[in-house]
Amino acid sequence: MSLSRNQQSNRERKSMNKIAFIGLGNMGAPMAKNLLKVGLTVEVFDLNRDTVTELASLGAIAADSIQSAVAKANVVITMLPASHHVKSVYLDDNGVLNHVSKGTLLIDSSTIDPETARSVAAQAQVKGLNFVDAPVSGGVSGAAAGTLTFIVGGTVENYSDAKEVLSHMGKNIFHAGEAGSGQMAKICNNMMLGILMSGTCEALNLGIENGLDPKVLSQIMLQSSGRNWALELYNPCPDVMENVPSSNGYQGGFMSQLMAKDLGLAMEASVQSQTSTPMGSLARNLFNLHNGQGNGERDFSSLFEFYRKK
Amino acid sequence: MSLSRNQQSNRERKSMNKIAFIGLGNMGAPMAKNLLKVGLTVEVFDLNRDTVTELASLGAIAADSIQSAVAKANVVITMLPASHHVKSVYLDDNGVLNHVSKGTLLIDSSTIDPETARSVAAQAQVKGLNFVDAPVSGGVSGAAAGTLTFIVGGTVENYSDAKEVLSHMGKNIFHAGEAGSGQMAKICNNMMLGILMSGTCEALNLGIENGLDPKVLSQIMLQSSGRNWALELYNPCPDVMENVPSSNGYQGGFMSQLMAKDLGLAMEASVQSQTSTPMGSLARNLFNLHNGQGNGERDFSSLFEFYRKK
Amino acid sequence: MSLSRNQQSNRERKSMNKIAFIGLGNMGAPMAKNLLKVGLTVEVFDLNRDTVTELASLGAIAADSIQSAVAKANVVITMLPASHHVKSVYLDDNGVLNHVSKGTLLIDSSTIDPETARSVAAQAQVKGLNFVDAPVSGGVSGAAAGTLTFIVGGTVENYSDAKEVLSHMGKNIFHAGEAGSGQMAKICNNMMLGILMSGTCEALNLGIENGLDPKVLSQIMLQSSGRNWALELYNPCPDVMENVPSSNGYQGGFMSQLMAKDLGLAMEASVQSQTSTPMGSLARNLFNLHNGQGNGERDFSSLFEFYRKK
Amino acid sequence: MSLSRNQQSNRERKSMNKIAFIGLGNMGAPMAKNLLKVGLTVEVFDLNRDTVTELASLGAIAADSIQSAVAKANVVITMLPASHHVKSVYLDDNGVLNHVSKGTLLIDSSTIDPETARSVAAQAQVKGLNFVDAPVSGGVSGAAAGTLTFIVGGTVENYSDAKEVLSHMGKNIFHAGEAGSGQMAKICNNMMLGILMSGTCEALNLGIENGLDPKVLSQIMLQSSGRNWALELYNPCPDVMENVPSSNGYQGGFMSQLMAKDLGLAMEASVQSQTSTPMGSLARNLFNLHNGQGNGERDFSSLFEFYRKK
Repeated sequence: MSLSRNQQSNRERKSMNKIAFIGLGNMGAPMAKNLLKVGLTVEVFDLNRDTVTELASLGAIAADSIQSAVAKANVVITMLPASHHVKSVYLDDNGVLNHVSKGTLLIDSSTIDPETARSVAAQAQVKGLNFVDAPVSGGVSGAAAGTLTFIVGGTVENYSDAKEVLSHMGKNIFHAGEAGSGQMAKICNNMMLGILMSGTCEALNLGIENGLDPKVLSQIMLQSSGRNWALELYNPCPDVMENVPSSNGYQGGFMSQLMAKDLGLAMEASVQSQTSTPMGSLARNLFNLHNGQGNGERDFSSLFEFYRKK
Repeated sequence: MSLSRNQQSNRERKSMNKIAFIGLGNMGAPMAKNLLKVGLTVEVFDLNRDTVTELASLGAIAADSIQSAVAKANVVITMLPASHHVKSVYLDDNGVLNHVSKGTLLIDSSTIDPETARSVAAQAQVKGLNFVDAPVSGGVSGAAAGTLTFIVGGTVENYSDAKEVLSHMGKNIFHAGEAGSGQMAKICNNMMLGILMSGTCEALNLGIENGLDPKVLSQIMLQSSGRNWALELYNPCPDVMENVPSSNGYQGGFMSQLMAKDLGLAMEASVQSQTSTPMGSLARNLFNLHNGQGNGERDFSSLFEFYRKK
Repeated sequence: MSLSRNQQSNRERKSMNKIAFIGLGNMGAPMAKNLLKVGLTVEVFDLNRDTVTELASLGAIAADSIQSAVAKANVVITMLPASHHVKSVYLDDNGVLNHVSKGTLLIDSSTIDPETARSVAAQAQVKGLNFVDAPVSGGVSGAAAGTLTFIVGGTVENYSDAKEVLSHMGKNIFHAGEAGSGQMAKICNNMMLGILMSGTCEALNLGIENGLDPKVLSQIMLQSSGRNWALELYNPCPDVMENVPSSNGYQGGFMSQLMAKDLGLAMEASVQSQTSTPMGSLARNLFNLHNGQGNGERDFSSLFEFYRKK
Repeated sequence: MSLSRNQQSNRERKSMNKIAFIGLGNMGAPMAKNLLKVGLTVEVFDLNRDTVTELASLGAIAADSIQSAVAKANVVITMLPASHHVKSVYLDDNGVLNHVSKGTLLIDSSTIDPETARSVAAQAQVKGLNFVDAPVSGGVSGAAAGTLTFIVGGTVENYSDAKEVLSHMGKNIFHAGEAGSGQMAKICNNMMLGILMSGTCEALNLGIENGLDPKVLSQIMLQSSGRNWALELYNPCPDVMENVPSSNGYQGGFMSQLMAKDLGLAMEASVQSQTSTPMGSLARNLFNLHNGQGNGERDFSSLFEFYRKK
């Protein structure tokens, strides 16, 4: 996936200094700020005018429509809540595809279903535009710190271009494959995470209910074949680890309803591809049952409480 | 859990140089050999006389009954297939408890249910004997190399004593808590492992069925929140990683039927303690269904094939 | 839901004697034949010209496009494989909605997602057309015998109208609620069926593996609280019941891949409505794993074999 | 399984008129009362002296030990909470087996694991005693009304004898097979019931969350392939059916913790026989999670609330 020096220098001649940023929510706003910090021109649009005003006060150009936001851009970045927003922002008559210059790089960092991503990419290509899907992980704190992980789907060249821009907002930038693959790889990873977290809650709770100390059990599993990301960095049992949501009333972190949303995307991909995902399906249901009891906005490691006897 | 200098020196005066070793199967035989290598006196017993003879040729003393094997021992080690063997070897009229000297250290390295371990420990204590449960992980290769992991349940003092002996056969020796805790911690860890493995098979397969390259997906998840022991050291998808069973026709490694057995122990602990273990229960059933198709003696990562469309 | 005499007589004056029938597959063809048998005018269309020719030989009018098929119809019936076919047949420029007379009754008997049904219904209403979704159960044999069950979603009046036409093809015609409800109720019922069948396979197998005679166990459960449709009419264990697929090598009946499809629709409804369906999700995965081993075209009660040790 | 006239008449000559009844809890007491009502001699024992006194006031003979209770009996009936009570009452030095006359019929109506039942049966046989396991269903109200269902495991002759006595307390008396089979068949049936109930809760909830009326949906499923015992007689959704626990705040009926106990017995049988029971395992976990939130003593159909969003 490395490029020769010539291709490299060709690529670098592309201008990628005028960014249109659409979608300035909890994630989008701090991401856009990081682009401003490195001196790029950033024209911003959001239906929420307050956040547009705030960004403008930091040096962004406020746009009052998608059309005007993207008119002069050579890169467009979108960060939107769900698939139908992405379809609308890119494909509507007033949308991105109809109003950008040929050759523009389009980066969608929303987390959506891969099919929508592939469809937008195909329609962009027809118009001579370069689309990548580039969903993120790392949460609001990663967005603020500029340490997000991006998983990119698109051609090698588009990935290379996108990497330059994304590197101002993130630390790890992976190339998962062709268009849609960024979404798909994120879905697989987050399904795995949902399984790790529910399994870790369950194993710790089984130990506690049978007389083990969760700190001791965690130490043993960390050095054995039960080791996993949740146990290492995000222990769901209160007071085993410092500076994690479980030791802070499950505040902050990654909302349980977002985990359920990601597991829902995995289920849809599983159904559409007729793939078997029994463990992921069960994890979705466990998080969903937990959320139904009023826990949707708490950190996803609060699933630990779902297992505890009241 | 550290001991003062005085206790330390007291403890060291205990003699632990005459070992009785009962149960010389695939695991027990190489473990006993490692004790011989460091010059300890080892008296061995097994119903299979061939393996007794083999050990004798390496310097062990062949015993023709449990009684005679343990008569002069100050340490007894047992390595047996299942709970009922452990009960019989320790508790029968001709068993260990009735024929060892007071103060003898008893180490059971079988993998059995914690209740049996607690029961034997209690009956040993009544007779002034010191019992620990010390199940292992690391498999036949770890037994041969002397690099096993032992998870020990028993008093702090018994753990310290056992550690000295076990250190000739293993590398990591954990103290999980009081008697039975070694078994319980191993059960929790291996339930976690069953979940990790089934989840990893499933996530990789979902990616493959949706067009991702399993090597690329594995790389991405390893650096993201899907990271786990199975993905790091034991990738179940053929040809992603070298020197693992999946790249060798799923030969060797940890037999799928042993994973199902360990998950079965987890289920029994879950039922008896009225604990909820939905993910672990499902993992047991997936491995059991897989084993029912003739895969019980293949490596447990062969579960990957269970997910694949034929 | 009963209508007054006046409304009743008004309704009856509506003409419903010219039927356009689109989609003449395994189900659609025998359904259309039953309409011909009662003397209705039936104009038929399918991409497969052979089946159109066959129907024409039985008295149907062969149409060479959707447009011409529906031009003179006062009732349109569609029986199509999946959602995208339904969208296309109704909503395309050459589709039904653009070429029927105002007031026409539109009956879609395909099994699709409720959202698509609701969307087509809404667009039909805008054009002054009367749409109901009316998915069926009863299989190919029920279609031939005219004993299908229809579960109808739509207004009370549209349901009453549709009932008259559907009564020539089926025996039980239920009104589930407004548009989309027919699909939704069928999805719920078939999810229940998937759970009943997998549970029945599992309970019988548990008994057999523990020494019980499946006939005796079936008799006991039938008279106890384990009674259910699968056990009563469709015992999945060979040789317990006569004239069911399990006693005929699992041929005929309801294909396992169709059960997986219906469970997939349930999963999508569950994800979209953020509802928890752990049992239904697991059932989908069990059928999908079974299908992946080459059983998709066998009867769905062949899941019994999935549980058996080989 | 029918007996010839001669055997029949032989059998009838056996005296079965002196009953020892051990275990007078919620179930045992009303069962014993029904034996008194038909004029049998009933000698009763329980650790709770109040219930012994109450039975004595109704004509029973109060015994102050198991020994004295069974000394003159030709039939012994036991109704105890769990396996270890059964072992103790039958096998202890002061227990039933050591103090009854040869040829006595022993009927254990407790719900316990089949292995214990088989073991007690075997030891009884050695002493020339006739043991059957005869677990019941029908609950406290069935016990009072004399309408219990008994599922009997034992020889054909012992079953025939037991049937005579049990017919004073129950309506349906099944013969499941040899000793232990009564327990096993009950376990299979109740696992099926746990699956039916959780599936029914789930299907109704999916419908409600997608706009269906639970009464309408229930009616449709009752006449379709989703029909099952829970839907027919025990609808878990409030106000769909009268005179069921769901329409009475989930009071009375069959306690959720007893359903979890029965599903736990199924899990143990599944693990011990290496059988796959994914649906039953999941059902156990759902009931157990529900019970852990303080619902253990409510009717088991209260699981419906577990699925509802709060």
